[in-house]
Amino acid sequence: MKNINGENTMEKLIGNAVVGQSGGPTSAINATLAGVISGLQKAAALGTVNTIYGMKNGITGLMNERFIDLSAMPEDALCSLSLTPAAALGSCRKKLPEPSEDPAFFESLYAVFKKYDIRYFFYIGGNDSMDTVKKLSEYAKISGETYEMRFIGVPKTIDNDLLLTDHTPGYGSAAKYIATSVKEVLFDIAVYDVPAVTIVEIMGRDAGWLTMAAALPRLSGGREPNLVYLPERTFSVEEFIEDVRAELSKNPAVLVAVSEGIRLADGEYVGAMAQSGATDVFGHKYLAGTARTLERIVKEKIGCKVRSMELNLLQRCGAHLASATDIAESRGVGKFAVSAALSGESGVMAAFRRNDGEVYSVGYVTYPVNNVANGVKTVPDAFINERGNGITDAGLRYIAPLITGETDLHFENGMPDYFSFENN
Amino acid sequence: MKNINGENTMEKLIGNAVVGQSGGPTSAINATLAGVISGLQKAAALGTVNTIYGMKNGITGLMNERFIDLSAMPEDALCSLSLTPAAALGSCRKKLPEPSEDPAFFESLYAVFKKYDIRYFFYIGGNDSMDTVKKLSEYAKISGETYEMRFIGVPKTIDNDLLLTDHTPGYGSAAKYIATSVKEVLFDIAVYDVPAVTIVEIMGRDAGWLTMAAALPRLSGGREPNLVYLPERTFSVEEFIEDVRAELSKNPAVLVAVSEGIRLADGEYVGAMAQSGATDVFGHKYLAGTARTLERIVKEKIGCKVRSMELNLLQRCGAHLASATDIAESRGVGKFAVSAALSGESGVMAAFRRNDGEVYSVGYVTYPVNNVANGVKTVPDAFINERGNGITDAGLRYIAPLITGETDLHFENGMPDYFSFENN
Repeated sequence: MKNINGENTMEKLIGNAVVGQSGGPTSAINATLAGVISGLQKAAALGTVNTIYGMKNGITGLMNERFIDLSAMPEDALCSLSLTPAAALGSCRKKLPEPSEDPAFFESLYAVFKKYDIRYFFYIGGNDSMDTVKKLSEYAKISGETYEMRFIGVPKTIDNDLLLTDHTPGYGSAAKYIATSVKEVLFDIAVYDVPAVTIVEIMGRDAGWLTMAAALPRLSGGREPNLVYLPERTFSVEEFIEDVRAELSKNPAVLVAVSEGIRLADGEYVGAMAQSGATDVFGHKYLAGTARTLERIVKEKIGCKVRSMELNLLQRCGAHLASATDIAESRGVGKFAVSAALSGESGVMAAFRRNDGEVYSVGYVTYPVNNVANGVKTVPDAFINERGNGITDAGLRYIAPLITGETDLHFENGMPDYFSFENN
Repeated sequence: MKNINGENTMEKLIGNAVVGQSGGPTSAINATLAGVISGLQKAAALGTVNTIYGMKNGITGLMNERFIDLSAMPEDALCSLSLTPAAALGSCRKKLPEPSEDPAFFESLYAVFKKYDIRYFFYIGGNDSMDTVKKLSEYAKISGETYEMRFIGVPKTIDNDLLLTDHTPGYGSAAKYIATSVKEVLFDIAVYDVPAVTIVEIMGRDAGWLTMAAALPRLSGGREPNLVYLPERTFSVEEFIEDVRAELSKNPAVLVAVSEGIRLADGEYVGAMAQSGATDVFGHKYLAGTARTLERIVKEKIGCKVRSMELNLLQRCGAHLASATDIAESRGVGKFAVSAALSGESGVMAAFRRNDGEVYSVGYVTYPVNNVANGVKTVPDAFINERGNGITDAGLRYIAPLITGETDLHFENGMPDYFSFENN
């Protein structure tokens, strides 16, 4: 709320702040937490914010009044927190009811806000977390509630599937982990000269952003995965076998990278044979075994040596390979979210806009959370080759700057020295 | 062969040298190759060795006369090689026949040695590779062959299961990868407060050395795996379920580390249900699915959330987490192997002896390869707790120094910049 001269005309909203983390861990969500805390500490120094509360285990901690006081965290702890994987405050997977259907639920949350004099609410998470911010903002509008609040979503997901933002905090670090791991596996499988197929399964239910990162070793000018399959294209077992045979005729060691979420023409997941059938509270299917299924198919149809592997949890928590670019941006967007709240915004998600120009840089912007929540951004056609089995150079140009730079992580006893609230 | 004054009384054996790599990749086998090359380059400067040949794909490259000339490799290339995973010369899994049963095979190898004026043979590998050195040495003894050769084995295996040596080159780097990864997974699983069991499967068919490394996060004073099972102890499904229940009663997030090779009282592998039934050329059973099998058991018997994961190939090729101690020792033992050969030794394996004292250090020694080949060193009782579900502090004291130090790996485009002969 600035006037024509750029002066802030809004009356200061003075009170406490609460910040929470939600959804799956990443290597950068704590950097965003550190950014929010340092932004709020600055606001506290200026007298706008008093106490900075951290919700334990996301919105469930708010409901149960389980808070950590973050007001006095020193800068060295914030730096260490920024390089620590997972979610230092704990996380949850809690879907809020519709405000129109269960207003009592939101009244009880407001009771907690009022009890603790909380005026600022920051929620760091993925798509489902933006849904939480959206519903809180909606309730504020439709309920006639007069207690003023500012609700800000701060993105976090390795999946990079949030709308509008150029990319998501956490994606670059996961991509760096995947690119490095795939590069190392390429070295590993090249040592034997007998025909062998290695299939690497990478996270990504509906979008292939993470699997795209497997193609990054091309930038090194050496070997790269022979075949890369994303969920954006229908998967054909026949074409896959053709592709593998063609690659084996050129090179004995063939590496295939696949998204866990690739599907057949009838919409069924390739990994469906090995899937548990369970769904999470958001109705997402739990998948396992896409690479294993393809392993069995190669064994049966081609009969050569074949192995499958999943990068599994480490692609989201392998913070020793965090991207310095990602960590800096993730902390930056957290700090920016605070300034957006202080300047009067609510119901928005802080985001990245990539600046034009040869040299990569981003600016911070906000988008109405309504335009973000529950949508999925998929990999554009221009990033996938015509056959649907590889990544284009345009795709690599998009992703390359996001994985650059190594953090100055401190090691102790030969292992990364990470931050935890229990030990501090 | 030194006289009482320590002078070398042996006549110099002048000729060419060949070096090869065999068995599974590690993060340190190229450091040993670099050590052998630099040792030989020094010998070349002194006029003992002329050309330094590298066998492509181990002994099969020797048989087919597929060589790379390593004589002129510059020091910066050797440094880069030292930090590169897998086997830069390529590897093989070739079991030699018994010299008494197939002398013609060895005659053909000697024909190659003679053709290329090769007098020095270095073979970097694991147990099966020491078997190769043993048979070559045996043949030299029993055949009456007068062409003088020196055969030296240089150990390499992430499994740490070679006899006599304090530990094996490559083990420390794999252990560092495992310790770091498990520590990161501990952070990841701690974010939710619902009961959940995570089972991490670690390589190790007959010995639990690698799985021991999962206990290293204890040194950080934070969380550590709740349960660790090695193949050295018989695995009981009933006790496992008891153990998991007991841990779940204390903490919602339970992490279990298991060796792929754990077996039931009847000798059957736990992962046998999911195993392919195939064996490799050495008759080893190919295992898959120990953690998956336990996942199913926990789901059935306890019914809580449970997931399994395998560290898979990355534990042997994740050189971005190589131990600086391991890389330095691995290069050192390669160089030492050359000096052993020059001083007249043959039919021996270069090895580490841990020095006494508070501060960790090793000396280089040789052992007759006959005493090493085809034996397996398992984890001693003192390193495993009484219940057989955890690692003792004595075990951690053994392993801790081996993972210390980080290498100064160069990154380019956000990924490690590794060496390959194709690009140099």
